[in-house]
Amino acid sequence: MANQEDIFKKVISHAKEYGYVFQSSEIYDGLSAVYDYGQNGAELKKNIREYWWKAMVQLNENIVGIDAAIFMHPTTWKASGHVDAFNDPLIDNKDSKKRYRADVLIEDHVAKIEAKIDKEVAKAAKRFGDSFDKEQFLSTNQRVVDYQAKADEILKRMAKSLENEDLADVKALIEELEIVCPLSGSKNWTDVKQFNLMFGTKLGASADSAMDLYLRPETAQGIFVNFLNVQKTGRMKIPFGIAQTGKAFRNEIVARQFIFRMREFEQMEMQYFIKPGTQKEWYEAWKEKRMKWHLSLGMGADNYRFHDHEKLAHYADAAADIEFKFPFGFKELEGIHSRTDFDLGNHEKYSGKKLQYFDPEENKSYVPYVLETSIGLDRMFLAVFSNSLQEEELENGSTRTVLKIPAVLAPNKVAVLPLLKRDGLPEVAQKLVDDLKWDFNVDYDEKDAVGRRYRRQDAAGTPFCVTVDHQTLEDDTVTIRHRDTMEQKRVKLSEVKDIISKEVDMRYWLQKIQ
Amino acid sequence: MANQEDIFKKVISHAKEYGYVFQSSEIYDGLSAVYDYGQNGAELKKNIREYWWKAMVQLNENIVGIDAAIFMHPTTWKASGHVDAFNDPLIDNKDSKKRYRADVLIEDHVAKIEAKIDKEVAKAAKRFGDSFDKEQFLSTNQRVVDYQAKADEILKRMAKSLENEDLADVKALIEELEIVCPLSGSKNWTDVKQFNLMFGTKLGASADSAMDLYLRPETAQGIFVNFLNVQKTGRMKIPFGIAQTGKAFRNEIVARQFIFRMREFEQMEMQYFIKPGTQKEWYEAWKEKRMKWHLSLGMGADNYRFHDHEKLAHYADAAADIEFKFPFGFKELEGIHSRTDFDLGNHEKYSGKKLQYFDPEENKSYVPYVLETSIGLDRMFLAVFSNSLQEEELENGSTRTVLKIPAVLAPNKVAVLPLLKRDGLPEVAQKLVDDLKWDFNVDYDEKDAVGRRYRRQDAAGTPFCVTVDHQTLEDDTVTIRHRDTMEQKRVKLSEVKDIISKEVDMRYWLQKIQ
Repeated sequence: MANQEDIFKKVISHAKEYGYVFQSSEIYDGLSAVYDYGQNGAELKKNIREYWWKAMVQLNENIVGIDAAIFMHPTTWKASGHVDAFNDPLIDNKDSKKRYRADVLIEDHVAKIEAKIDKEVAKAAKRFGDSFDKEQFLSTNQRVVDYQAKADEILKRMAKSLENEDLADVKALIEELEIVCPLSGSKNWTDVKQFNLMFGTKLGASADSAMDLYLRPETAQGIFVNFLNVQKTGRMKIPFGIAQTGKAFRNEIVARQFIFRMREFEQMEMQYFIKPGTQKEWYEAWKEKRMKWHLSLGMGADNYRFHDHEKLAHYADAAADIEFKFPFGFKELEGIHSRTDFDLGNHEKYSGKKLQYFDPEENKSYVPYVLETSIGLDRMFLAVFSNSLQEEELENGSTRTVLKIPAVLAPNKVAVLPLLKRDGLPEVAQKLVDDLKWDFNVDYDEKDAVGRRYRRQDAAGTPFCVTVDHQTLEDDTVTIRHRDTMEQKRVKLSEVKDIISKEVDMRYWLQKIQ
Repeated sequence: MANQEDIFKKVISHAKEYGYVFQSSEIYDGLSAVYDYGQNGAELKKNIREYWWKAMVQLNENIVGIDAAIFMHPTTWKASGHVDAFNDPLIDNKDSKKRYRADVLIEDHVAKIEAKIDKEVAKAAKRFGDSFDKEQFLSTNQRVVDYQAKADEILKRMAKSLENEDLADVKALIEELEIVCPLSGSKNWTDVKQFNLMFGTKLGASADSAMDLYLRPETAQGIFVNFLNVQKTGRMKIPFGIAQTGKAFRNEIVARQFIFRMREFEQMEMQYFIKPGTQKEWYEAWKEKRMKWHLSLGMGADNYRFHDHEKLAHYADAAADIEFKFPFGFKELEGIHSRTDFDLGNHEKYSGKKLQYFDPEENKSYVPYVLETSIGLDRMFLAVFSNSLQEEELENGSTRTVLKIPAVLAPNKVAVLPLLKRDGLPEVAQKLVDDLKWDFNVDYDEKDAVGRRYRRQDAAGTPFCVTVDHQTLEDDTVTIRHRDTMEQKRVKLSEVKDIISKEVDMRYWLQKIQ
């Protein structure tokens, strides 16, 4: 089994080779942490977006979609807390000129202390064998107790300083711990400064009337500012949801891991407006609903887990992640957040407008509470793509590379292949393409031996290949080959469309979670 | 018949009232020339995008889609000419502090001269009656000849000054013509300055390493920089096309006419890569293909016309618009441009990379020529919406407001209405909703008298209403009502899905243009 890093490299190179993901502006040597989706990637991304939209909007009578602009009035971001609180504390090393997140430097230092504890534990476990009691050892071994106390003290002090915006003390902590720059090895640090992660731009032409704008760092606020317009014009009754997909932008300092953390990315968010006091039950209900959606794709229940947040964001009274097993370990794929009335309440305050719902059952008005589900479309893409890429050993000893993307999400649903490039086979195949293309994306391939074409379609993620051969001319049958099992079956030409339709239709996949 | 301005006002207020388009950040009193799409608008926009994508990508074997980022390497915009040439010449009036496009001020002045000519012509036509020869009058009447010469001279001088970037002379011209500020009436002007229409932002955190980026002003360049990656990984053979939809941004000085000209907007562009020398035939072919696409929606052939460009952009050797009859007159809806090898050639130059295609038939490599089709999604939205909004006088003397959006694009395809809110009718209706929602967007409405609900669905653009009544309980039939004709027909419950499917399925609409 290859190691994680090798697997991840293979994912990235396969994504490029098969037209899924290209580096942005590659001919100009790229743009850091920005990527473009190629001819297959664009379709996979589109299919994931549609699978989400269908499940969230089309199938839920009380959830509607909107499409708000990336540009919003700048006061929006005062109200949301992003102007004041969407910062990273940064520090520069004067020798290497390299910039770091101060909190990450300190956390890395603490991780080293914790590694020492692990080492002591391992040593003791080996020494004491079966009679080793880890809990007791951790609480009684003086060296370990001291390490743990030290680690706790550092993290506590850092949290307190960051909360109090005491950046001088964050720097003092880095100096006291004698943390060095990983690059230069030097302790020659600048002051710590807060850096806002929002991208800024200017609207309007004249210098004095230009308005400072931000590119939205999340799509959620576009839903909050439109809450009342949607509720009134759509005659919505609580509980109801508003969903949207769209681009968001964050000027990440440490953007990395391919499309996992990009500076420009796409979100799929839903805000569910509920009666205050009911947030606990909706939080549990949406955790379950969203997990079911993920599981409907059949990518393996073991690859998902919940992670409940202990440290809550300023707007939340409960929060959990659905984590997915990426090639670099379990990481957040989707967040479910109980946001209370934080956002609507603040927009009331900053806009001076009432953002309330009149509840006919309660016969009173209130600011609704909000339950949010938020998933990164690009992360979902990476989850599907990396999980689907497999190397299989075949019976004859050779290996094949196959991209087992769930058929409902695959860019091309079928490839039509004439066995030979003569005897009228291409014409029959082309006729089939012209028929099937009305229902789904079809590829036509007549180049190279058919075995090689199968491999190519396997690697590109096409779930079905239909081969037209000489028997087709006699009895109107073709072979249909399944990507995952490589099994071939002879079927009537007239049945091909129905057979494939059933396997790729979103309805059939989503019915699993009703 | 109401005048154009009243009709347009009605379009804007109806768009808000029925959840199609809201002003952006309305609770903060809006953001100039930016709009959000509401619960019905988001679906209409999505359906237009999908109708385009299906026609361009899914049905054309040799056209593939991509999804490039909004952020691109800044050299892209040097190569495309946007850094140097995507400017408006601006001038401020010192008294009103209002900013104008200098060329528009001059053109407005010329329009006044031309109005004088029109007046002379009208006068003479009246005087001479049937024997009036307009051409002769224009060339012989001294006053008219002088007006025309003056107008031509002004436009010629302006064009030359702008081409030579002689902005001092543009100002001199404004002063010589004694053009006054429409607001203050003053001639107290600043100098003319070039203003670039691209929005800028900064990528990266450290002050010295930050990179100046632009928000893309068009999606086309995302296709050009990916041309070779797509061609190679997709094994594409010329002629082939690359399509994409996505946001673009222009810091328009005079942004107006609702969603017709916005600062943030969405494009649907396709670049067709062809052999040099074949551009004329592809230009004609794509003009025809694109017009057919528009006509397939059945919004009236009279509402479209071609407008060939006389003044060509720097990158084009031929260009035409498909114009649509908006409430404010015929305006550009889509552009078809023969872009030659301008873009790929410049990207070769600026990147130092070869962007050539090896043509196996010609046995040589060349930089392909490009034929572009470019349509504004928001403009298409406005075309569909404004054309669909109609006031009809009914036989009983009352009027109804109906939004006759082509059924294939309508946000909700059907509303299911129980005649009464009792006797088990809501339950039967709800069951039908639960069945239909797998296939398309369904609305359920049980409030108010059924006549009022019909009007509501008419105004919201829902093409079909299905009413469940007492007879339904007896014989499993319902009435299905068509929005456009208001005709009702009794059909079996089990047939409802098929009847509606046929009328709303994109396949049936697009087959018209094959």
